[in-house]
Amino acid sequence: MTENNQLRKFGEHIRTIRKAQGLSQEQLAELSGLHRNYIGGVERGERNLALLNIIRIAHALGMSPSELLKGLD
Amino acid sequence: MTENNQLRKFGEHIRTIRKAQGLSQEQLAELSGLHRNYIGGVERGERNLALLNIIRIAHALGMSPSELLKGLD
Repeated sequence: MTENNQLRKFGEHIRTIRKAQGLSQEQLAELSGLHRNYIGGVERGERNLALLNIIRIAHALGMSPSELLKGLD
Repeated sequence: MTENNQLRKFGEHIRTIRKAQGLSQEQLAELSGLHRNYIGGVERGERNLALLNIIRIAHALGMSPSELLKGLD
């Protein structure tokens, strides 16, 4: 899988979980302390997000970072 | 846990796995396509590494990204 596809797959995974929890991008941004535009970019696979932001998003979704990364397995 | 401690914990986890596999930092750098100094910085908790590098290091260690991040749980 190309690196772009990995980012896209991870972004889609986050979007799926966010929607399953009934959260808007705005709400996930608030919960994770990140900007809404950043969340949008992550979900579109445009961001090679850093570990600390992976941790923030995971915790905002009530998951561990390793659980969140299962979306890449 | 502070963000620095999260990076330090993750770095130590990578070092532990690398050593358990009998790999030097040089060998892990080669396997992952990253620079040896970068690997050293990651292991010392000095790098907020991006997702694609997490994936590269995980695969170089023969693991999935989610398995590698279990070190943060």
